[in-house]
Amino acid sequence: MTGAAPSPTRSRRPASVASLLADVRDVGRDPRRGGYSRFAYAPAELELRTWFEAEAARRSLDVVTDRNGILWAWRPGPGGSLDDAVVTGSHLDSVPGGGEFDGPLGVASAFAALDLLDARDVGGERPLAIVAFPEEEGGRFGRACLGSQLMTGEQDPDRVLGLLDADGTSLADALTGAGLDPVHLGRDEEALRRIGVFVELHVEQGRGLVDLDQPVAVASSILGHGRWRLTVTGEGNHAGATLMADRRDPMVAAAQVVVAVRDLASSRPDARATVGRLQPVPGGTNVIASRVDLWLDVRHPDDDVTRALVAQVLESAHAVCAAEGCAVELVEESYSGQVRFDAGLRDRLRGVLPDAPVLATGAGHDAGVLAAHVPSAMLFTRNPTGVSHSPEEHVDDADAEAGAAALADVLQDLLVPREPR
Amino acid sequence: MTGAAPSPTRSRRPASVASLLADVRDVGRDPRRGGYSRFAYAPAELELRTWFEAEAARRSLDVVTDRNGILWAWRPGPGGSLDDAVVTGSHLDSVPGGGEFDGPLGVASAFAALDLLDARDVGGERPLAIVAFPEEEGGRFGRACLGSQLMTGEQDPDRVLGLLDADGTSLADALTGAGLDPVHLGRDEEALRRIGVFVELHVEQGRGLVDLDQPVAVASSILGHGRWRLTVTGEGNHAGATLMADRRDPMVAAAQVVVAVRDLASSRPDARATVGRLQPVPGGTNVIASRVDLWLDVRHPDDDVTRALVAQVLESAHAVCAAEGCAVELVEESYSGQVRFDAGLRDRLRGVLPDAPVLATGAGHDAGVLAAHVPSAMLFTRNPTGVSHSPEEHVDDADAEAGAAALADVLQDLLVPREPR
Repeated sequence: MTGAAPSPTRSRRPASVASLLADVRDVGRDPRRGGYSRFAYAPAELELRTWFEAEAARRSLDVVTDRNGILWAWRPGPGGSLDDAVVTGSHLDSVPGGGEFDGPLGVASAFAALDLLDARDVGGERPLAIVAFPEEEGGRFGRACLGSQLMTGEQDPDRVLGLLDADGTSLADALTGAGLDPVHLGRDEEALRRIGVFVELHVEQGRGLVDLDQPVAVASSILGHGRWRLTVTGEGNHAGATLMADRRDPMVAAAQVVVAVRDLASSRPDARATVGRLQPVPGGTNVIASRVDLWLDVRHPDDDVTRALVAQVLESAHAVCAAEGCAVELVEESYSGQVRFDAGLRDRLRGVLPDAPVLATGAGHDAGVLAAHVPSAMLFTRNPTGVSHSPEEHVDDADAEAGAAALADVLQDLLVPREPR
Repeated sequence: MTGAAPSPTRSRRPASVASLLADVRDVGRDPRRGGYSRFAYAPAELELRTWFEAEAARRSLDVVTDRNGILWAWRPGPGGSLDDAVVTGSHLDSVPGGGEFDGPLGVASAFAALDLLDARDVGGERPLAIVAFPEEEGGRFGRACLGSQLMTGEQDPDRVLGLLDADGTSLADALTGAGLDPVHLGRDEEALRRIGVFVELHVEQGRGLVDLDQPVAVASSILGHGRWRLTVTGEGNHAGATLMADRRDPMVAAAQVVVAVRDLASSRPDARATVGRLQPVPGGTNVIASRVDLWLDVRHPDDDVTRALVAQVLESAHAVCAAEGCAVELVEESYSGQVRFDAGLRDRLRGVLPDAPVLATGAGHDAGVLAAHVPSAMLFTRNPTGVSHSPEEHVDDADAEAGAAALADVLQDLLVPREPR
């Protein structure tokens, strides 16, 4: 054996992103849908939180779950200060049947980047925190970026505590089950004040980096996007005993709405509109449905176009439903306008990562919610399939390490600004 | 107090159908869908089985659950014989979010009719049995009349034991959980031999009796019907990051299939075709589905027309899916040809119930399955809404008692044939 014994704080080799994710590769697999279903405050996501806490403890970080259910792992600054912190991280929850990387890649990359900073002996004057936001996907309660929207006051706690998941469990009960007190939900001035800057690394959800042959990008903007729930009501009845002419079948009406959504969005450049979730009630093979709930996801860079498109969908739905003897209602569940990330911060990241292209994204992120409140930025790691929200989503190990290294470079620059060149 | 003490076997007043059903009115209510969800071998249906056993015990009937999970309550004939029995009953399971009467009315009416026979001191030379068939609706495992189809050998046990419910539980595991041994499933010669005649009373699933202003009808026929599962496969992806032009969205294809089903069925007189169950996978708001499963229910008096209609649906689905970059597969889950009930037995019932009209039905029943094997008949009790497979289904108390009295008259005639008039 040669050399001095390693010091306690340098006892570990930097963890690779791949090895960190390997530890949770079997958490929340969904045998029915394929991929992963890791819903906020459900067992799989709670197991990922336990993993987060263990990784934080291994690095002597202080773990706190705040009043909005957001997980924080802190390396305080001088004198134990938590103010003006450099914050990085992402989310642990998934869409139903989602990929392995959407969310956890950003958290694992944060731990790996911290290890790289430790190996480089980068301390810095600013506190550092790794964060995991709950219900980013809205996969359980239907509100995307719920944790960051609560923290920033963009969601009213009283309007979301009664939201029900598919099993009829309310958000309030889910929080209580996870040991949180729902009474404390809402805008968190202290948490916001502590965030000096937020940088989220995320798997790319498109083919931008594949086409450019680069492993890492810096984000420019997030497409404005929203979710609306359409409820089509008809008359439930027996599928065998009811003549075709006597029916008021909401499935037939809802089906025409699905096609109209596609046709209307296709006629507007840059618009994306999707019905990916649709639920006939009661949902029996030999039963004409009494009601169909469908969810509409619409995105466009121009908020006015998004609004106009949703209005057109509703107009079309009214016409279709009237012709089928059905009724339709539309409720907005969430809306986030187009986000342009802080230009100065973006340019600073480009200075640190001169080879990284700058890409826009159509996907929503907690960084997009925070951008209206604190300087925020994003990095994307290449996804060779270009597919996301699907088991097909992928990140090669080498790209994952390149992403973590890029994040470490960015964090180092924020913690210990370089000399002007 | 006047008169002699009642004998032990005559100690009860005849139970009313309403009072029997009142005892289970809160079993299996479905707060999400409304109405009742009482799935075979799930807790609510098992609670109804316990109720059945208690009602049988109260009447000193011998309860047996046979190897296909069918519940029997026996009043043996002379010498303890069970052969050439008069059998009546129905089912206890429901569609998801179904009505209170579809199934349990026939079972409760059977107990009430037996009480009326007891009050009339009708014994008879033939054994009598009350029966409850499992999974009549196919609400849990997708195969309608599963219990009667297994007993008659029309379903191969090896083809159904692996069927999964919505939670991924197999039929084999559900049977085991209910204390049954799946290895014994299949054609039951002994049970079939014992049934001399089967009469099923059921709530009407249409407006025939309402229009004719009568409380009870005799069935003439059951429309041929079947179930097919269509699987539409596309490419799952992110709803925000995927351009409209780059999509292969199976929801858009499936929606066009739903409309085609309605249009094709509407163009053929007497045909009924329904998509009441449709499930996008993974089913997230911000996720383009990778697959959509939809179930097709088709009925027509002429089996050739049913077959031709399903072939047309598949042809249309292939064209739609090809245009959307998707693929489609169709699997037949069950098929039952048109049933015409035994004419002699039907006329015998008409002789006992001269005011009862004779009605055809579009709904499938266990009596339709048994009709190919043993003399079978049905009675319908008026449903003032005409709606079934829905919480709107209803039976007035007076009609329920009229139904039970009609059933008692029919059973009496079968147990103790009247002198020729």
